[in-house]
Amino acid sequence: MVKFFGTPPGVHVGQIFVDRADLRAAGVHPPLMNGIHGTAVEGADSIVLAGGYEEDDDQGDFIIYTGEGGNDSTTKKQYKDQSVDSPGNAGLITSQLLGLPVRVSRSHKAKTPFAPPAGIRYAGLYLVTDHKVVTGSQGFKVILFRLDRLPEQEPYESNAQPTVDPVYATTTVSRRVRDSAMARKVKSLYNHECQICGVTLVTNTGLRYSEGAHVRPLGKPHLGTDVASNLLCLCPNHHTLLDVGGLAISDEYAVSFTPTMAPFAELQFKQWHVMEVSNVQYHRNQWFSAN
Amino acid sequence: MVKFFGTPPGVHVGQIFVDRADLRAAGVHPPLMNGIHGTAVEGADSIVLAGGYEEDDDQGDFIIYTGEGGNDSTTKKQYKDQSVDSPGNAGLITSQLLGLPVRVSRSHKAKTPFAPPAGIRYAGLYLVTDHKVVTGSQGFKVILFRLDRLPEQEPYESNAQPTVDPVYATTTVSRRVRDSAMARKVKSLYNHECQICGVTLVTNTGLRYSEGAHVRPLGKPHLGTDVASNLLCLCPNHHTLLDVGGLAISDEYAVSFTPTMAPFAELQFKQWHVMEVSNVQYHRNQWFSAN
Repeated sequence: MVKFFGTPPGVHVGQIFVDRADLRAAGVHPPLMNGIHGTAVEGADSIVLAGGYEEDDDQGDFIIYTGEGGNDSTTKKQYKDQSVDSPGNAGLITSQLLGLPVRVSRSHKAKTPFAPPAGIRYAGLYLVTDHKVVTGSQGFKVILFRLDRLPEQEPYESNAQPTVDPVYATTTVSRRVRDSAMARKVKSLYNHECQICGVTLVTNTGLRYSEGAHVRPLGKPHLGTDVASNLLCLCPNHHTLLDVGGLAISDEYAVSFTPTMAPFAELQFKQWHVMEVSNVQYHRNQWFSAN
Repeated sequence: MVKFFGTPPGVHVGQIFVDRADLRAAGVHPPLMNGIHGTAVEGADSIVLAGGYEEDDDQGDFIIYTGEGGNDSTTKKQYKDQSVDSPGNAGLITSQLLGLPVRVSRSHKAKTPFAPPAGIRYAGLYLVTDHKVVTGSQGFKVILFRLDRLPEQEPYESNAQPTVDPVYATTTVSRRVRDSAMARKVKSLYNHECQICGVTLVTNTGLRYSEGAHVRPLGKPHLGTDVASNLLCLCPNHHTLLDVGGLAISDEYAVSFTPTMAPFAELQFKQWHVMEVSNVQYHRNQWFSAN
Protein backbone atom coordinates (compact mmCIF):
# COMPACT_ATOMS: atom_id res chain seq x y z
CA MET A 1 0.00 0.00 0.00
CA VAL A 2 1.34 3.43 -0.95
CA LYS A 3 2.76 5.57 1.83
CA PHE A 4 1.16 8.84 2.90
CA PHE A 5 3.32 11.00 5.16
CA GLY A 6 1.44 13.19 7.59
CA THR A 7 -1.88 13.20 9.43
CA PRO A 8 -4.75 12.01 7.19
CA PRO A 9 -7.53 14.55 6.54
CA GLY A 10 -10.27 14.31 9.17
CA VAL A 11 -7.99 12.76 11.80
CA HIS A 12 -6.88 14.75 14.84
CA VAL A 13 -4.35 14.26 17.61
CA GLY A 14 -5.95 12.48 20.56
CA GLN A 15 -8.61 10.78 18.44
CA ILE A 16 -9.51 7.29 19.73
CA PHE A 17 -10.19 4.38 17.38
CA VAL A 18 -12.12 1.27 18.41
CA ASP A 19 -9.69 -1.27 16.96
CA ARG A 20 -7.09 -1.85 14.26
CA ALA A 21 -9.78 -2.09 11.54
CA ASP A 22 -11.10 1.32 12.59
CA LEU A 23 -7.53 2.74 12.59
CA ARG A 24 -7.00 1.28 9.11
CA ALA A 25 -10.29 2.69 7.76
CA ALA A 26 -9.26 6.21 8.86
CA GLY A 27 -6.01 5.91 6.89
CA VAL A 28 -3.82 6.08 9.99
CA HIS A 29 -2.25 2.61 9.92
CA PRO A 30 -3.05 0.26 7.01
CA PRO A 31 -1.80 -3.13 8.26
CA LEU A 32 -4.02 -4.99 10.72
CA MET A 33 -1.24 -6.92 12.47
CA ASN A 34 2.18 -5.31 11.86
CA GLY A 35 3.36 -2.58 14.16
CA ILE A 36 5.26 -0.77 11.37
CA HIS A 37 3.93 0.26 7.95
CA GLY A 38 6.97 0.70 5.74
CA THR A 39 9.38 -0.41 3.03
CA ALA A 40 13.09 0.23 2.48
CA VAL A 41 12.50 2.41 -0.59
CA GLU A 42 9.52 4.51 0.49
CA GLY A 43 10.23 4.74 4.23
CA ALA A 44 7.78 4.05 7.07
CA ASP A 45 4.81 6.38 7.58
CA SER A 46 3.15 4.87 10.66
CA ILE A 47 3.76 2.75 13.75
CA VAL A 48 1.56 1.38 16.53
CA LEU A 49 2.82 0.88 20.09
CA ALA A 50 1.20 -2.23 21.51
CA GLY A 51 3.53 -3.44 24.23
CA GLY A 52 5.02 -6.41 22.38
CA TYR A 53 8.66 -5.74 23.29
CA GLU A 54 10.43 -5.46 26.61
CA GLU A 55 12.88 -2.83 25.36
CA ASP A 56 10.17 -0.28 24.47
CA ASP A 57 10.45 2.92 26.51
CA ASP A 58 7.69 5.47 26.02
CA GLN A 59 8.43 8.89 27.50
CA GLY A 60 5.70 10.82 25.71
CA ASP A 61 7.65 13.39 23.72
CA PHE A 62 10.22 10.79 22.83
CA ILE A 63 9.90 7.05 22.42
CA ILE A 64 12.38 4.20 22.26
CA TYR A 65 10.60 1.76 19.94
CA THR A 66 11.73 -1.78 19.23
CA GLY A 67 11.79 -2.83 15.57
CA GLU A 68 9.85 -5.75 14.14
CA GLY A 69 10.56 -9.46 13.93
CA GLY A 70 12.12 -12.25 15.91
CA ASN A 71 9.56 -12.64 18.64
CA ASP A 72 6.73 -15.08 19.15
CA SER A 73 3.41 -13.28 18.95
CA THR A 74 1.85 -15.51 21.58
CA THR A 75 4.55 -15.77 24.22
CA LYS A 76 6.09 -12.34 23.37
CA LYS A 77 9.47 -14.06 23.73
CA GLN A 78 12.34 -13.28 21.38
CA TYR A 79 13.61 -16.41 19.59
CA LYS A 80 15.85 -14.94 16.88
CA ASP A 81 17.71 -11.75 15.86
CA GLN A 82 15.89 -8.79 14.33
CA SER A 83 17.20 -7.64 10.95
CA VAL A 84 17.66 -4.19 9.43
CA ASP A 85 16.47 -5.73 6.14
CA SER A 86 12.96 -6.47 7.35
CA PRO A 87 10.59 -4.03 5.52
CA GLY A 88 9.37 -2.23 8.63
CA ASN A 89 12.83 -1.79 10.16
CA ALA A 90 14.36 -0.76 6.82
CA GLY A 91 11.44 1.65 6.38
CA LEU A 92 12.07 3.36 9.72
CA ILE A 93 15.78 3.75 8.85
CA THR A 94 14.80 5.35 5.51
CA SER A 95 12.40 7.67 7.36
CA GLN A 96 15.25 8.64 9.70
CA LEU A 97 17.59 9.43 6.82
CA LEU A 98 15.04 11.33 4.74
CA GLY A 99 13.38 13.07 7.70
CA LEU A 100 9.94 11.67 6.93
CA PRO A 101 7.26 12.19 9.60
CA VAL A 102 5.88 8.99 11.17
CA ARG A 103 2.35 8.69 12.64
CA VAL A 104 2.38 7.24 16.14
CA SER A 105 -0.64 5.51 17.67
CA ARG A 106 -0.79 3.85 21.08
CA SER A 107 -2.91 0.78 21.81
CA HIS A 108 -4.42 0.33 25.27
CA LYS A 109 -2.20 -2.78 25.36
CA ALA A 110 0.96 -0.66 25.40
CA LYS A 111 2.53 -0.70 28.85
CA THR A 112 2.92 3.08 29.14
CA PRO A 113 1.21 5.93 31.00
CA PHE A 114 0.47 7.49 27.59
CA ALA A 115 -1.72 4.60 26.46
CA PRO A 116 -5.49 5.18 26.27
CA PRO A 117 -7.83 3.30 28.65
CA ALA A 118 -9.39 1.48 25.68
CA GLY A 119 -8.93 1.25 21.91
CA ILE A 120 -6.07 2.95 20.08
CA ARG A 121 -5.22 6.64 20.32
CA TYR A 122 -3.50 8.68 17.59
CA ALA A 123 -0.65 10.69 19.14
CA GLY A 124 0.52 12.74 16.16
CA LEU A 125 3.70 12.95 14.09
CA TYR A 126 7.18 11.98 15.21
CA LEU A 127 10.58 11.89 13.52
CA VAL A 128 12.90 8.92 13.73
CA THR A 129 16.02 10.62 15.09
CA ASP A 130 18.24 7.59 15.72
CA HIS A 131 18.52 3.84 15.64
CA LYS A 132 20.78 1.33 17.34
CA VAL A 133 21.29 -2.43 17.25
CA VAL A 134 21.61 -3.96 20.73
CA THR A 135 21.47 -7.38 22.32
CA GLY A 136 18.10 -7.59 24.03
CA SER A 137 17.27 -9.06 27.42
CA GLN A 138 16.69 -12.45 25.85
CA GLY A 139 20.08 -12.68 24.15
CA PHE A 140 18.97 -11.83 20.60
CA LYS A 141 19.68 -8.68 18.60
CA VAL A 142 16.94 -6.07 18.55
CA ILE A 143 16.83 -2.70 16.80
CA LEU A 144 15.93 0.28 18.94
CA PHE A 145 14.56 3.39 17.22
CA ARG A 146 14.32 6.77 18.86
CA LEU A 147 11.34 8.88 17.80
CA ASP A 148 10.98 12.53 18.81
CA ARG A 149 7.64 14.30 18.59
CA LEU A 150 7.44 17.15 16.11
CA PRO A 151 6.74 20.54 17.66
CA GLU A 152 3.76 22.66 16.61
CA GLN A 153 1.17 19.97 17.16
CA GLU A 154 -1.77 19.77 19.55
CA PRO A 155 -0.74 18.21 22.87
CA TYR A 156 -1.91 14.64 23.46
CA GLU A 157 -3.92 13.54 26.45
CA SER A 158 -2.19 11.33 28.95
CA ASN A 159 -2.06 10.38 32.58
CA ALA A 160 1.61 11.38 32.84
CA GLN A 161 3.87 14.30 32.09
CA PRO A 162 6.25 13.79 29.17
CA THR A 163 9.81 13.28 30.30
CA VAL A 164 12.75 15.36 29.19
CA ASP A 165 15.88 13.46 28.15
CA PRO A 166 18.50 15.27 30.27
CA VAL A 167 21.48 15.03 27.92
CA TYR A 168 19.41 15.72 24.83
CA ALA A 169 17.88 18.76 26.50
CA THR A 170 21.17 20.39 27.50
CA THR A 171 21.60 21.42 23.88
CA THR A 172 19.57 23.88 21.91
CA VAL A 173 18.45 23.61 18.31
CA SER A 174 20.39 26.16 16.31
CA ARG A 175 19.13 25.32 12.87
CA ARG A 176 16.07 23.41 11.71
CA VAL A 177 15.79 22.05 8.21
CA ARG A 178 12.11 22.27 7.35
CA ASP A 179 10.69 19.73 4.97
CA SER A 180 7.31 19.34 3.29
CA ALA A 181 5.58 17.27 0.62
CA MET A 182 6.43 19.98 -1.94
CA ALA A 183 10.09 20.05 -0.88
CA ARG A 184 10.28 16.27 -1.31
CA LYS A 185 8.81 16.63 -4.82
CA VAL A 186 11.41 19.22 -5.85
CA LYS A 187 14.30 17.23 -4.32
CA SER A 188 13.12 14.13 -6.14
CA LEU A 189 12.99 16.02 -9.48
CA TYR A 190 16.69 16.84 -9.10
CA ASN A 191 17.56 13.38 -7.75
CA HIS A 192 19.06 15.30 -4.80
CA GLU A 193 21.67 17.19 -6.84
CA CYS A 194 22.36 20.68 -5.52
CA GLN A 195 21.03 23.28 -8.00
CA ILE A 196 24.07 25.44 -7.26
CA CYS A 197 27.05 23.05 -7.16
CA GLY A 198 25.73 19.70 -8.38
CA VAL A 199 26.87 17.86 -5.23
CA THR A 200 24.76 14.99 -3.83
CA LEU A 201 25.30 13.52 -0.37
CA VAL A 202 24.97 9.74 -0.19
CA THR A 203 24.31 7.62 2.92
CA ASN A 204 25.85 4.27 3.89
CA THR A 205 23.06 2.40 2.09
CA GLY A 206 23.21 4.50 -1.09
CA LEU A 207 20.25 6.75 -0.30
CA ARG A 208 20.67 10.29 -1.65
CA TYR A 209 20.22 13.35 0.58
CA SER A 210 19.50 17.01 -0.19
CA GLU A 211 17.49 19.80 1.39
CA GLY A 212 14.50 21.81 0.21
CA ALA A 213 15.37 25.49 0.65
CA HIS A 214 12.65 28.16 0.81
CA VAL A 215 14.07 31.29 -0.85
CA ARG A 216 11.52 33.61 0.77
CA PRO A 217 11.27 32.24 4.32
CA LEU A 218 8.05 30.56 5.40
CA GLY A 219 5.45 32.09 7.69
CA LYS A 220 5.53 35.32 9.66
CA PRO A 221 7.08 37.86 9.22
CA HIS A 222 8.21 36.99 5.68
CA LEU A 223 5.05 35.25 4.56
CA GLY A 224 6.84 33.06 2.02
CA THR A 225 4.84 30.04 0.88
CA ASP A 226 5.57 26.35 0.52
CA VAL A 227 5.32 26.14 -3.29
CA ALA A 228 7.77 24.83 -5.91
CA SER A 229 8.42 28.35 -7.25
CA ASN A 230 9.81 29.30 -3.83
CA LEU A 231 11.89 26.12 -3.37
CA LEU A 232 15.36 25.03 -4.42
CA CYS A 233 17.03 21.63 -4.08
CA LEU A 234 20.37 22.41 -2.38
CA CYS A 235 23.20 20.68 -0.53
CA PRO A 236 23.35 21.58 3.19
CA ASN A 237 26.25 24.01 2.65
CA HIS A 238 24.46 26.08 0.00
CA HIS A 239 21.18 25.85 1.91
CA THR A 240 22.92 27.23 4.99
CA LEU A 241 24.56 30.03 2.98
CA LEU A 242 21.16 30.97 1.52
CA ASP A 243 19.63 31.04 5.02
CA VAL A 244 22.35 33.18 6.63
CA GLY A 245 22.71 35.73 3.85
CA GLY A 246 25.95 34.22 2.57
CA LEU A 247 24.83 34.29 -1.07
CA ALA A 248 22.65 36.30 -3.44
CA ILE A 249 20.69 35.20 -6.52
CA SER A 250 20.24 37.65 -9.40
CA ASP A 251 17.08 38.10 -11.48
CA GLU A 252 18.89 35.99 -14.10
CA TYR A 253 19.52 33.26 -11.45
CA ALA A 254 23.27 33.84 -11.25
CA VAL A 255 24.66 33.02 -7.80
CA SER A 256 27.26 35.21 -6.07
CA PHE A 257 28.39 35.83 -2.49
CA THR A 258 26.97 39.38 -2.55
CA PRO A 259 24.93 41.20 -5.23
CA THR A 260 27.96 43.29 -6.22
CA MET A 261 30.39 40.39 -6.63
CA ALA A 262 30.93 38.29 -9.77
CA PRO A 263 28.75 35.15 -9.95
CA PHE A 264 30.42 31.81 -9.10
CA ALA A 265 27.54 29.65 -10.38
CA GLU A 266 24.18 29.62 -12.12
CA LEU A 267 21.08 27.96 -10.73
CA GLN A 268 20.34 24.79 -12.73
CA PHE A 269 16.67 24.10 -13.48
CA LYS A 270 14.92 20.96 -14.74
CA GLN A 271 11.64 20.27 -16.53
CA TRP A 272 8.61 22.04 -14.98
CA HIS A 273 10.50 23.74 -12.16
CA VAL A 274 10.69 27.55 -12.12
CA MET A 275 11.72 30.07 -9.46
CA GLU A 276 9.48 33.10 -9.05
CA VAL A 277 11.77 36.10 -9.57
CA SER A 278 10.07 38.10 -6.81
CA ASN A 279 11.32 35.51 -4.32
CA VAL A 280 15.01 35.98 -5.19
CA GLN A 281 14.42 39.74 -5.10
CA TYR A 282 12.86 39.37 -1.66
CA HIS A 283 15.87 37.37 -0.47
CA ARG A 284 18.38 39.95 -1.76
CA ASN A 285 16.38 42.71 -0.13
CA GLN A 286 16.22 40.78 3.15
CA TRP A 287 19.99 40.44 3.43
CA PHE A 288 21.54 43.13 1.24
CA SER A 289 19.17 46.11 1.37
CA ALA A 290 20.85 49.47 1.91
CA ASN A 291 19.35 49.63 5.39
CA MET B 1 28.30 43.11 30.54
CA VAL B 2 29.32 39.67 29.34
CA LYS B 3 26.66 37.54 27.67
CA PHE B 4 25.44 34.30 29.20
CA PHE B 5 23.36 32.13 26.88
CA GLY B 6 20.77 29.97 28.55
CA THR B 7 18.64 30.00 31.69
CA PRO B 8 20.63 31.17 34.74
CA PRO B 9 21.01 28.67 37.60
CA GLY B 10 18.15 28.95 40.07
CA VAL B 11 15.75 30.51 37.57
CA HIS B 12 12.81 28.51 36.20
CA VAL B 13 10.26 29.00 33.44
CA GLY B 14 7.19 30.81 34.78
CA GLN B 15 9.10 32.53 37.60
CA ILE B 16 7.76 36.02 38.35
CA PHE B 17 10.06 38.92 39.21
CA VAL B 18 8.88 42.05 41.02
CA ASP B 19 10.55 44.56 38.70
CA ARG B 20 13.49 45.10 36.33
CA ALA B 21 15.95 45.34 39.24
CA ASP B 22 14.77 41.96 40.51
CA LEU B 23 15.07 40.51 36.97
CA ARG B 24 18.58 41.92 36.72
CA ALA B 25 19.63 40.54 40.13
CA ALA B 26 18.61 37.03 39.05
CA GLY B 27 20.86 37.31 35.99
CA VAL B 28 17.96 37.12 33.53
CA HIS B 29 18.19 40.57 31.94
CA PRO B 30 21.04 42.92 32.97
CA PRO B 31 19.92 46.32 31.59
CA LEU B 32 17.27 48.19 33.56
CA MET B 33 15.79 50.11 30.62
CA ASN B 34 16.70 48.49 27.30
CA GLY B 35 14.50 45.74 25.93
CA ILE B 36 17.42 43.92 24.30
CA HIS B 37 20.69 42.86 25.94
CA GLY B 38 23.16 42.41 23.09
CA THR B 39 26.09 43.45 20.93
CA ALA B 40 26.96 42.79 17.28
CA VAL B 41 29.94 40.60 18.16
CA GLU B 42 28.60 38.53 21.05
CA GLY B 43 24.94 38.34 20.03
CA ALA B 44 21.90 39.05 22.21
CA ASP B 45 21.11 36.74 25.13
CA SER B 46 17.91 38.28 26.51
CA ILE B 47 14.88 40.40 25.61
CA VAL B 48 11.93 41.81 27.55
CA LEU B 49 8.51 42.32 25.99
CA ALA B 50 6.95 45.44 27.43
CA GLY B 51 4.45 46.66 24.88
CA GLY B 52 6.46 49.59 23.53
CA TYR B 53 5.87 48.91 19.83
CA GLU B 54 2.71 48.63 17.76
CA GLU B 55 4.15 45.98 15.47
CA ASP B 56 4.80 43.44 18.27
CA ASP B 57 2.76 40.27 17.82
CA ASP B 58 2.99 37.72 20.63
CA GLN B 59 1.55 34.31 19.80
CA GLY B 60 3.09 32.39 22.69
CA ASP B 61 5.23 29.79 20.94
CA PHE B 62 6.37 32.37 18.44
CA ILE B 63 6.77 36.10 18.77
CA ILE B 64 7.17 38.94 16.30
CA TYR B 65 9.33 41.37 18.25
CA THR B 66 10.17 44.90 17.17
CA GLY B 67 13.82 45.95 17.41
CA GLU B 68 15.09 48.88 19.46
CA GLY B 69 15.38 52.56 18.74
CA GLY B 70 13.56 55.36 16.99
CA ASN B 71 10.62 55.75 19.30
CA ASP B 72 9.88 58.23 22.06
CA SER B 73 9.81 56.44 25.41
CA THR B 74 7.05 58.71 26.72
CA THR B 75 4.66 58.97 23.79
CA LYS B 76 5.63 55.52 22.35
CA LYS B 77 5.57 57.22 18.93
CA GLN B 78 8.14 56.41 16.28
CA TYR B 79 10.05 59.51 15.14
CA LYS B 80 12.95 57.99 13.15
CA ASP B 81 14.10 54.80 11.42
CA GLN B 82 15.45 51.86 13.39
CA SER B 83 18.92 50.68 12.40
CA VAL B 84 20.47 47.21 12.08
CA ASP B 85 23.64 48.75 13.55
CA SER B 86 22.12 49.51 16.95
CA PRO B 87 23.73 47.09 19.49
CA GLY B 88 20.51 45.31 20.44
CA ASN B 89 19.31 44.87 16.86
CA ALA B 90 22.74 43.80 15.64
CA GLY B 91 22.91 41.41 18.61
CA LEU B 92 19.64 39.72 17.70
CA ILE B 93 20.83 39.28 14.09
CA THR B 94 24.05 37.69 15.37
CA SER B 95 21.99 35.40 17.60
CA GLN B 96 19.92 34.44 14.57
CA LEU B 97 22.98 33.60 12.50
CA LEU B 98 24.80 31.71 15.24
CA GLY B 99 21.70 30.01 16.63
CA LEU B 100 22.17 31.42 20.13
CA PRO B 101 19.28 30.93 22.57
CA VAL B 102 17.61 34.15 23.78
CA ARG B 103 15.86 34.48 27.16
CA VAL B 104 12.36 35.95 26.82
CA SER B 105 10.59 37.71 29.69
CA ARG B 106 7.20 39.39 29.53
CA SER B 107 6.31 42.47 31.54
CA HIS B 108 2.72 42.96 32.73
CA LYS B 109 2.84 46.06 30.49
CA ALA B 110 3.07 43.91 27.36
CA LYS B 111 -0.22 43.94 25.52
CA THR B 112 -0.51 40.17 25.11
CA PRO B 113 -2.53 37.35 26.67
CA PHE B 114 0.79 35.77 27.71
CA ALA B 115 1.77 38.68 29.98
CA PRO B 116 1.61 38.13 33.75
CA PRO B 117 -0.96 40.03 35.86
CA ALA B 118 1.87 41.86 37.68
CA GLY B 119 5.67 42.06 37.53
CA ILE B 120 7.74 40.32 34.86
CA ARG B 121 7.55 36.63 34.01
CA TYR B 122 10.41 34.56 32.56
CA ALA B 123 9.09 32.55 29.60
CA GLY B 124 12.15 30.47 28.72
CA LEU B 125 14.48 30.22 25.72
CA TYR B 126 13.68 31.17 22.15
CA LEU B 127 15.66 31.21 18.91
CA VAL B 128 15.68 34.16 16.55
CA THR B 129 14.57 32.45 13.33
CA ASP B 130 14.17 35.48 11.04
CA HIS B 131 14.31 39.22 10.73
CA LYS B 132 12.84 41.71 8.32
CA VAL B 133 13.00 45.48 7.80
CA VAL B 134 9.56 47.02 7.16
CA THR B 135 7.99 50.45 7.13
CA GLY B 136 5.97 50.68 10.35
CA SER B 137 2.52 52.16 10.84
CA GLN B 138 4.08 55.56 11.55
CA GLY B 139 6.07 55.76 8.32
CA PHE B 140 9.50 54.88 9.74
CA LYS B 141 11.55 51.74 9.24
CA VAL B 142 11.33 49.14 12.00
CA ILE B 143 13.03 45.77 12.28
CA LEU B 144 10.81 42.80 13.02
CA PHE B 145 12.38 39.71 14.56
CA ARG B 146 10.70 36.34 14.67
CA LEU B 147 11.48 34.24 17.74
CA ASP B 148 10.41 30.60 18.04
CA ARG B 149 10.33 28.87 21.41
CA LEU B 150 12.76 26.00 21.85
CA PRO B 151 11.11 22.64 22.45
CA GLU B 152 11.92 20.53 25.53
CA GLN B 153 11.18 23.26 28.04
CA GLU B 154 8.54 23.47 30.74
CA PRO B 155 5.32 25.02 29.45
CA TYR B 156 4.65 28.60 30.52
CA GLU B 157 1.51 29.75 32.24
CA SER B 158 -0.83 31.95 30.28
CA ASN B 159 -4.43 32.93 29.84
CA ALA B 160 -4.36 31.90 26.18
CA GLN B 161 -3.44 28.96 24.01
CA PRO B 162 -0.31 29.43 21.87
CA THR B 163 -1.13 29.94 18.20
CA VAL B 164 0.23 27.84 15.38
CA ASP B 165 1.54 29.71 12.33
CA PRO B 166 -0.36 27.92 9.54
CA VAL B 167 2.26 28.15 6.77
CA TYR B 168 5.15 27.41 9.11
CA ALA B 169 3.31 24.40 10.51
CA THR B 170 2.59 22.76 7.14
CA THR B 171 6.21 21.72 7.05
CA THR B 172 8.00 19.25 9.25
CA VAL B 173 11.49 19.52 10.68
CA SER B 174 13.65 16.93 8.94
CA ARG B 175 16.96 17.78 10.52
CA ARG B 176 17.84 19.71 13.66
CA VAL B 177 21.30 21.06 14.26
CA ARG B 178 21.81 20.83 18.00
CA ASP B 179 24.07 23.37 19.63
CA SER B 180 25.46 23.76 23.14
CA ALA B 181 27.96 25.82 25.09
CA MET B 182 30.57 23.11 24.49
CA ALA B 183 29.85 23.02 20.75
CA ARG B 184 30.32 26.79 20.58
CA LYS B 185 33.67 26.43 22.35
CA VAL B 186 34.93 23.80 19.89
CA LYS B 187 33.68 25.78 16.85
CA SER B 188 35.40 28.87 18.17
CA LEU B 189 38.71 26.97 18.61
CA TYR B 190 38.67 26.11 14.90
CA ASN B 191 37.43 29.56 13.89
CA HIS B 192 34.59 27.67 12.15
CA GLU B 193 36.87 25.73 9.76
CA CYS B 194 35.58 22.25 8.97
CA GLN B 195 37.92 19.65 10.54
CA ILE B 196 37.43 17.47 7.45
CA CYS B 197 37.63 19.82 4.45
CA GLY B 198 38.73 23.18 5.86
CA VAL B 199 35.72 25.03 4.43
CA THR B 200 34.15 27.92 6.38
CA LEU B 201 30.76 29.43 5.50
CA VAL B 202 30.60 33.21 5.79
CA THR B 203 27.47 35.36 6.15
CA ASN B 204 26.68 38.69 4.49
CA THR B 205 28.22 40.56 7.43
CA GLY B 206 31.38 38.45 7.59
CA LEU B 207 30.31 36.22 10.48
CA ARG B 208 31.66 32.68 10.20
CA TYR B 209 29.37 29.64 10.47
CA SER B 210 30.05 25.99 11.30
CA GLU B 211 28.26 23.23 13.17
CA GLY B 212 29.15 21.24 16.28
CA ALA B 213 28.76 17.55 15.40
CA HIS B 214 28.35 14.90 18.11
CA VAL B 215 30.10 11.74 16.88
CA ARG B 216 28.24 9.45 19.29
CA PRO B 217 24.68 10.84 19.21
CA LEU B 218 23.33 12.55 22.31
CA GLY B 219 20.82 11.06 24.70
CA LYS B 220 18.85 7.82 24.47
CA PRO B 221 19.41 5.26 22.98
CA HIS B 222 23.03 6.12 22.16
CA LEU B 223 23.88 7.88 25.41
CA GLY B 224 26.58 10.06 23.83
CA THR B 225 27.55 13.08 25.91
CA ASP B 226 28.01 16.77 25.19
CA VAL B 227 31.78 16.95 25.76
CA ALA B 228 34.63 18.22 23.56
CA SER B 229 36.01 14.68 23.07
CA ASN B 230 32.70 13.75 21.37
CA LEU B 231 32.46 16.92 19.25
CA LEU B 232 33.82 17.98 15.86
CA CYS B 233 33.65 21.36 14.14
CA LEU B 234 32.24 20.56 10.68
CA CYS B 235 30.68 22.28 7.68
CA PRO B 236 26.99 21.41 7.19
CA ASN B 237 27.77 18.96 4.36
CA HIS B 238 30.22 16.89 6.40
CA HIS B 239 28.03 17.15 9.50
CA THR B 240 25.10 15.77 7.49
CA LEU B 241 27.23 12.96 6.07
CA LEU B 242 28.36 12.03 9.59
CA ASP B 243 24.74 12.00 10.80
CA VAL B 244 23.36 9.84 7.96
CA GLY B 245 26.14 7.27 7.88
CA GLY B 246 27.75 8.75 4.76
CA LEU B 247 31.25 8.65 6.21
CA ALA B 248 33.40 6.65 8.61
CA ILE B 249 36.31 7.75 10.83
CA SER B 250 39.12 5.28 11.56
CA ASP B 251 40.91 4.85 14.89
CA GLU B 252 43.70 6.94 13.32
CA TYR B 253 41.14 9.68 12.44
CA ALA B 254 41.27 9.06 8.69
CA VAL B 255 37.95 9.89 6.98
CA SER B 256 36.46 7.69 4.25
CA PHE B 257 32.99 7.09 2.80
CA THR B 258 32.89 3.55 4.24
CA PRO B 259 35.35 1.72 6.54
CA THR B 260 36.59 -0.41 3.61
CA MET B 261 37.25 2.50 1.21
CA ALA B 262 40.44 4.56 0.96
CA PRO B 263 40.45 7.71 3.11
CA PHE B 264 39.81 11.04 1.36
CA ALA B 265 40.80 13.22 4.32
CA GLU B 266 42.24 13.26 7.82
CA LEU B 267 40.61 14.97 10.76
CA GLN B 268 42.54 18.12 11.66
CA PHE B 269 42.97 18.84 15.37
CA LYS B 270 44.08 21.98 17.21
CA GLN B 271 45.56 22.68 20.65
CA TRP B 272 43.74 20.94 23.52
CA HIS B 273 41.10 19.26 21.39
CA VAL B 274 41.04 15.45 21.23
CA MET B 275 38.48 12.93 19.99
CA GLU B 276 37.84 9.93 22.20
CA VAL B 277 38.54 6.89 20.00
CA SER B 278 35.62 4.94 21.45
CA ASN B 279 33.27 7.53 19.96
CA VAL B 280 34.47 7.03 16.38
CA GLN B 281 34.30 3.27 16.98
CA TYR B 282 30.73 3.66 18.21
CA HIS B 283 29.83 5.64 15.09
CA ARG B 284 31.32 3.05 12.73
CA ASN B 285 29.49 0.31 14.58
CA GLN B 286 26.23 2.27 14.44
CA TRP B 287 26.28 2.59 10.66
CA PHE B 288 28.57 -0.14 9.33
CA SER B 289 28.23 -3.11 11.69
CA ALA B 290 27.77 -6.48 9.98
CA ASN B 291 24.17 -6.61 11.15
